[in-house]
Amino acid sequence: MSWRVVIAGGGFGGFYAARALERTLPNQSARVTLVNDANFMLYTPLLPGAAGATLDPRHVVVPLRAELKRTELVIGRVSGHDPAGRTLAVERVDSSPLELAYDQLLIALGSVSRTLPIPGLAEHGIGLKSLADATAVRNQVLQCMDIAESIDDPARRREYLGFVFVGAGYAGVEGLGELQDFAAHAIELYPRCRADGMRWVLVEARERIMQEVPESLSRFAQRELLARGIEVRTRTELLALSQSAATLSGGETIPTRTLVWTAGVKPSPAIAKLGLTRDSSGRLPVDRTLRVAELPGVWAIGDCAAVPDSSRPGSLCPPTAQHAIRQGRLVARNIAATLQGREARPFTYRTKGVVAELGRNKAVAITFGVRWQGFPAWLIARTYHLLLMPGIGRRLRLLVDWNVALVFGRDTSAPGRLGTPTPLEAEQEQG
Amino acid sequence: MSWRVVIAGGGFGGFYAARALERTLPNQSARVTLVNDANFMLYTPLLPGAAGATLDPRHVVVPLRAELKRTELVIGRVSGHDPAGRTLAVERVDSSPLELAYDQLLIALGSVSRTLPIPGLAEHGIGLKSLADATAVRNQVLQCMDIAESIDDPARRREYLGFVFVGAGYAGVEGLGELQDFAAHAIELYPRCRADGMRWVLVEARERIMQEVPESLSRFAQRELLARGIEVRTRTELLALSQSAATLSGGETIPTRTLVWTAGVKPSPAIAKLGLTRDSSGRLPVDRTLRVAELPGVWAIGDCAAVPDSSRPGSLCPPTAQHAIRQGRLVARNIAATLQGREARPFTYRTKGVVAELGRNKAVAITFGVRWQGFPAWLIARTYHLLLMPGIGRRLRLLVDWNVALVFGRDTSAPGRLGTPTPLEAEQEQG
Repeated sequence: MSWRVVIAGGGFGGFYAARALERTLPNQSARVTLVNDANFMLYTPLLPGAAGATLDPRHVVVPLRAELKRTELVIGRVSGHDPAGRTLAVERVDSSPLELAYDQLLIALGSVSRTLPIPGLAEHGIGLKSLADATAVRNQVLQCMDIAESIDDPARRREYLGFVFVGAGYAGVEGLGELQDFAAHAIELYPRCRADGMRWVLVEARERIMQEVPESLSRFAQRELLARGIEVRTRTELLALSQSAATLSGGETIPTRTLVWTAGVKPSPAIAKLGLTRDSSGRLPVDRTLRVAELPGVWAIGDCAAVPDSSRPGSLCPPTAQHAIRQGRLVARNIAATLQGREARPFTYRTKGVVAELGRNKAVAITFGVRWQGFPAWLIARTYHLLLMPGIGRRLRLLVDWNVALVFGRDTSAPGRLGTPTPLEAEQEQG
Repeated sequence: MSWRVVIAGGGFGGFYAARALERTLPNQSARVTLVNDANFMLYTPLLPGAAGATLDPRHVVVPLRAELKRTELVIGRVSGHDPAGRTLAVERVDSSPLELAYDQLLIALGSVSRTLPIPGLAEHGIGLKSLADATAVRNQVLQCMDIAESIDDPARRREYLGFVFVGAGYAGVEGLGELQDFAAHAIELYPRCRADGMRWVLVEARERIMQEVPESLSRFAQRELLARGIEVRTRTELLALSQSAATLSGGETIPTRTLVWTAGVKPSPAIAKLGLTRDSSGRLPVDRTLRVAELPGVWAIGDCAAVPDSSRPGSLCPPTAQHAIRQGRLVARNIAATLQGREARPFTYRTKGVVAELGRNKAVAITFGVRWQGFPAWLIARTYHLLLMPGIGRRLRLLVDWNVALVFGRDTSAPGRLGTPTPLEAEQEQG
């Protein structure tokens, strides 16, 4: 009987591992099953583009079935794990249970937004991690303008025209950059809002924005944001959030109905259900070959794994898509090697570069040590994403989207609660 | 002081009336306010295209603010009416109340799905009237395949691969045509489902499908559906619906998890809140000039109005977009005439033609008495929609969508519950 390989999680790590296994394992030598909660992989770096309406939300996802021809796909959530019996428990999308026996198990369950115990944050804050989040944030911005436009009291109007992002890493800066650009375009259609003006505030606890890039690029990004009228508050924390205001550590209170929380991630809660040892931040410790030491045949990669960073001894790999992709490819090779009685190789990867888009066709980037900013950096970012996006059709769709948005501008309708239709009314009337 | 004109409803009728008023009324002579529950008009004839994934959902809506430069837009729902005080009560999107005083009031609140008191229909049926409905139906089809693919019992699998449409008017035939075409494409990615095959059933109570077109075109449409393996049950009614089966009047039971209800519409429930006389089907009776007789300065058009049909004496105008658009343009002229002390004109419109798309680049159409079918009819349908869609940018986006879909096929990912993000978790953990 052929080997059974189970991959839990279809994000960058799990998807690239499955793709590499399809190419590495001889045909019919193993049955590879991928468990994911959706039938697509979200291409997270393009999420701000979907939020800012330069991209069709359908084009920032990779349909897993179309790209993985030899992998069996199970849509569901990991609900448990029997390490002794070597089975993974899954709850399928229709709530029915499924037990998946495995010889090799890869855990790539990724991360979710990490909140802090700040009063009001869970009730009033919005995350920016999923496609639903991106659509919700975009609709929220438009809905605030729609409401502000119909309010007569200028003081009350102000809270609908204040937008706060907390956390100035990639996600926060890119998300704010795209959305402010989108809103600056949309507000032209709201005469009263336009007369008042909007207020955009970026809040960061550390001493500068974008810790991930060198200080010179971080300064460039900050100058670009300031030039657009965006207020940047570094060394500042969110203390409390209500329906209509955010209170910051400097004592300042910002009237706002929209606070987007992008201050960090934590491993997926499903990790806790696996019965495996976790580190202090909830991740699964692995050795340099990406193996979970305590249990043979179990591997972990990506945001849910604590992977030693070979380029910075003593540190762990950062939770980026770049690292997850490389770990996915290596772990596929190591799983195949283990099945075939060969040695597993250690993970050695040095970040090749970083790119962060800021909206308005601007970006900052470092590629192989060279720093780029402005329009050239934006072109590099776009090219990079085009090359990484699987499927020639999807690449062309992205190109079409970008060029249509360049020519015609952004779309400013709020298609609202897509996918949650009003139920058919129960009715007694005879038609 | 300038006149106050209030339009309740921003569908085809209300939108075209507002546009015509902007062009007809001298600048600053009247303040025109449009009340709508969304900041866009849904271009309903393209809804099946959005459901079948040939069109980006964002491209089948018309952003009202972008198209109506001189109309004040209030996003909210009509909640009441004081005929004596001449004010319309609105509940805004943030639930706050608003009173709109008017000199002239146009009621264009449209229609919603009309159900019948069939056991299980309200609980398990899906409508196909809104953008949320279209996304939900599409996701439902994909989710059924995802589940079926992971089920071992062939009998249980069958209920996930059965799809039933009840009501074979335009909406039902176009919707089923597009979705079956979409599903036939998507199923190639599901090996087990493909081996089993799908079952698509169209149920119609009357003796033939598409009563709106002559019998020869209806026969063509039916032949086209049959050729694709779609089962057509005329003179058949839905008797009961459960989570996993539909029972038809012939005694037949069809295993299905997906029943789309497209058997008719009824006036928007908000009509009942206006304190005006309604006819037996809940519509507002108007005279030939579109005036609500009982109250001066109040007009009604579109699906919520009972408008005498000049081309068929004794009958009422059918609830189609074509009629709503013409009524919108005429009522704008009549409102302007009334304000300016001129005579209102009667509504005289003879249907110029009908088009119905069937998916797979096929359609049936009648234009000025000439009948078309197949690919030529499909080209006519596309051209017609392009000409009617307001905004050159939106027309080009539609063309791009259609051509991309022609070249690359349809998109088969299910972006799921867009716009309903998981709330940020309340959390005690210190980051």
